[in-house]
Amino acid sequence: MTVFDRLFADSTLSQLQQKDTHDPLAHKRAEFKLPEGVIYLDGNSLGALPLRVSARILRVVEQEWGNQLIRSWTANAEAAQDWMQLPDRVAAKIAPLIGAQAHEVAVGDSTSVNIFKLLAAALKMAPSERHVILTDADNFPTDLYMAQGLNALLGGQYELRPVPSAELEAHLTEEVALTLLTEVDYRTGRKLDMAGLTAKAHKNGILTIWDLAHSAGAFPVDLNGTGADFAVGCGYKYLNGGPGAPSFLFVAQRHHDSAHAFLSGWMGHADPFEMAREFSPAPGARRYVVGTPTVLSLSALDAALDVFGDVDMNELRAKSLSLTDTFIELMEPLTAQYPLTLVTPQTHAERGSQVSYQHPQAQEVMQKLTQRGILGDFRTPDILRFGFTPLYHSHADVWRAVQGVKHVLEGSG
Amino acid sequence: MTVFDRLFADSTLSQLQQKDTHDPLAHKRAEFKLPEGVIYLDGNSLGALPLRVSARILRVVEQEWGNQLIRSWTANAEAAQDWMQLPDRVAAKIAPLIGAQAHEVAVGDSTSVNIFKLLAAALKMAPSERHVILTDADNFPTDLYMAQGLNALLGGQYELRPVPSAELEAHLTEEVALTLLTEVDYRTGRKLDMAGLTAKAHKNGILTIWDLAHSAGAFPVDLNGTGADFAVGCGYKYLNGGPGAPSFLFVAQRHHDSAHAFLSGWMGHADPFEMAREFSPAPGARRYVVGTPTVLSLSALDAALDVFGDVDMNELRAKSLSLTDTFIELMEPLTAQYPLTLVTPQTHAERGSQVSYQHPQAQEVMQKLTQRGILGDFRTPDILRFGFTPLYHSHADVWRAVQGVKHVLEGSG
Repeated sequence: MTVFDRLFADSTLSQLQQKDTHDPLAHKRAEFKLPEGVIYLDGNSLGALPLRVSARILRVVEQEWGNQLIRSWTANAEAAQDWMQLPDRVAAKIAPLIGAQAHEVAVGDSTSVNIFKLLAAALKMAPSERHVILTDADNFPTDLYMAQGLNALLGGQYELRPVPSAELEAHLTEEVALTLLTEVDYRTGRKLDMAGLTAKAHKNGILTIWDLAHSAGAFPVDLNGTGADFAVGCGYKYLNGGPGAPSFLFVAQRHHDSAHAFLSGWMGHADPFEMAREFSPAPGARRYVVGTPTVLSLSALDAALDVFGDVDMNELRAKSLSLTDTFIELMEPLTAQYPLTLVTPQTHAERGSQVSYQHPQAQEVMQKLTQRGILGDFRTPDILRFGFTPLYHSHADVWRAVQGVKHVLEGSG
Repeated sequence: MTVFDRLFADSTLSQLQQKDTHDPLAHKRAEFKLPEGVIYLDGNSLGALPLRVSARILRVVEQEWGNQLIRSWTANAEAAQDWMQLPDRVAAKIAPLIGAQAHEVAVGDSTSVNIFKLLAAALKMAPSERHVILTDADNFPTDLYMAQGLNALLGGQYELRPVPSAELEAHLTEEVALTLLTEVDYRTGRKLDMAGLTAKAHKNGILTIWDLAHSAGAFPVDLNGTGADFAVGCGYKYLNGGPGAPSFLFVAQRHHDSAHAFLSGWMGHADPFEMAREFSPAPGARRYVVGTPTVLSLSALDAALDVFGDVDMNELRAKSLSLTDTFIELMEPLTAQYPLTLVTPQTHAERGSQVSYQHPQAQEVMQKLTQRGILGDFRTPDILRFGFTPLYHSHADVWRAVQGVKHVLEGSG
C-alpha cells in the first residue's frame, strides 16, 4: 500500500464512520451476538443470534417443558404463552414485515414443504386447461424440486417451464397456471418487480407464488399492496430465527375458501382436540399449519422477531442500499485489477440486500476470506456472495470487508 | 380408610418398593428433570425433559449458532457435529429402537407430513386397480386427515375405509392398496398384532404403513422382523425429544428404488450444494428429508436419544408391563366402586405402555388429578389415559398415582 493509498483509505473509512454516527439503526447491533474478529456477511444464509433468543430457549426448555410439561400446550393462554397459539403469534409478528394481515400467514414446516402446499392449492384453483408452472431457470433448486415432485405425484400432467428471468414477462401466456418465482435471486441478488409481474400475471389469469427467502426482513415487502396471491418465506435468513427455523406461508384472504389445505393435519383443524374423524379447516391461514409445532425452534423464531419491534422497515431498506452501494463502490477498483465481475444490479429497485461477484476461483477466494474472519458464501459455479444486514452491519464493516477482499486477491491473505 | 385398608395399602407399597429395589432401569430416573410433587403419567403425550438436553441446546445456540454461525453446517463433520449430517445421526440412533437399519430411517418434519410422504409413495406403488386405504376407525385423527387431504389432491380416486380394529383382518381384501394403522391406539392403549397383520396384508398384496407414535421408545419394535413396508413415528412422546420434536419415517430397503420421494426438497438431494436443476435423490432414506433441518429441535431429540444408549429394550418392556399390571391391579377395587371401565387389554401382547379407563366425568376427574399433581390425559369423549414410562417411573409412583385417583373419586380430592 502506498502512502497515498493509505491516506485515501483512511479518509474513506473516517467518512464511512461519520455515516455510521448518523445511523438510526446503529443501536440494533447490540441486540446480536457477533463473534469477535468476524465480519459476518452471511446473514442471508443464516441470520446471527439475537441475544434474547438464548434466554427464551432456556426458559422454554427448563420451565415450559421441564417443569410445566404437557400443561404448557394450553397454560397461560391469557399471557400469550401457550404453545397451541404460538404459530399464530409468530404469524402475527411476520405479517407486518411482509404487508400481510395476521390471519393470512401460517408458520411452521420448512420452506420446501410450504412451497408444496401452495403449489398444490394453486394448481387445483387454476383453470384445468392451464398446465404450465412458469419459473425462473435460476430459481433456488428446492423450489424447482418441489414442483417436480408434486407434478410427478399428479401424474406428470403439468409442465415446469424454467425461463431466464429477463424473459419471464414474455412467457405470461394463457397456458400458464401459475408462476413460482423468488423475488431476490439467491446468487445474483437481482430483485424482480413483484408488483409489475403480479399485475401482468393477473391480467393473463395467472396465479402467483412468491418466494420471499431473501426478502422478508431484508426490506419492506408489501404482499397485499402488490396483489400477490401466495407467498412463502424463510425464518432463518434475515429473520434470524436460527438454523432451520420454521418457515412461513401467505395466502391472500380472498383465496382462503378456494385454496385447499391438502396437507391437512390435526393442528390445522378447527378444533384439534375434538378428535373428529373428518378434517374441518381452522379459520384463516391456521388451516395450513399441519402437525404439532416444533416448539423449540418456533420459540427461537418468536423471540428473534422481537428484534423488529422498533424497526422502521423503510429506514432498514435505506441503510441496506447504502451498505450495498458502499460495498460496490469500494470494490470497483478491485474489479478493474482482478477477474471480478459484479453480477448484482446497480439499480436500487432491482437489488436485494446482497452483492455478488463472479470470480474464476470463487471457492478458493471465499475459503481465504473465511480464514480471515470475513464470512460470505461461495455459490456454484463461480459466485462470491456477500449479504448485508442493516440490523448489525456498519459502513465501517463494509470498509473492513473490502480491505479483506483486497488482501486475499493480492495474495497476501 | 379403615385400619385394615391402611395396613393392606402400606404392605402393598412396601412390596412395590421392594420390586423397585430390583429394577435394572431404576438409575435412568436420575437422567430426567421431574418436577417435585408431580407424578407424570403423560410421557405418551410429551416425554419429560432429559437433563442432557439443556446443556446440548445451550451449546447449539451459543456456540454452534452464535459463534460458529454458518460454518456449523459443515464444520466438525469428523467429530460428528456438523448440522448437515445431523438428520442421519439421529436416524441411526432411532433405527435400533424400531428394528430398522440406519439407512432405512429419515428424520425431520412432523408425523403428519411424514404420513403424507409415505401415503403418496405407497399409493403410487400399489397396483392401479386397488383404490382402498384401509384404516382403523379410531386411528389418530391426523392420520385420517392426511389421507383425506392426499386423496382430495389426487382427485378423490381413492377411498379411505375406516373399520373397527377388530374387523381389520376381515377387510384385507383385493380392493385394498394399503393399510394405515397405528400400532397402539392412542385412547385405549390396545396394541395391534403388527407381525400378523403385516403378513396377512402381504399375502393379499397390500402394503402396510405403521404409525409408531405410541410404540417407539415404549417397547422394542421390530420393523424388519415383521416385514413392515413403511412406518412413521413421533419424536416427542416416548423418545422424549421435546415439544413438537421432529418425526421419523421408515422405508424398508427393498422399497427404496420404487418409493418415490414426492416431497423432494434440496436436503434430500444427492448433492444439495451442486444446486442442480433436477432432483436426484440421495442414497437410502435420506431422500425423504425435505427442507433445511430444524437444528434446535433436532439437536434436542439427538441428545434425548442418548438416554437409550444403555437401555435393554426387553428389560424396558418387562418393566412397562409390570407397571401397567400393577396399575390395573391396584385400580381394580375402584372399578367396582365407581363408574370406571378399563378399556386397555389385560393380555400383555395386546397392550402398549398406557392404561385407560372410561368414566362419565372423565374430563372433570382429570382436572382434579392434575390439581393433585397427577398428570395424565383426558381424551374425548370419556377417556382417562395414564401413560407409563419405564425410564422414570417406579412401582411406588404407580401406588401413589392410584391413591390420588382414589382420593379424587372419593370426592376428597
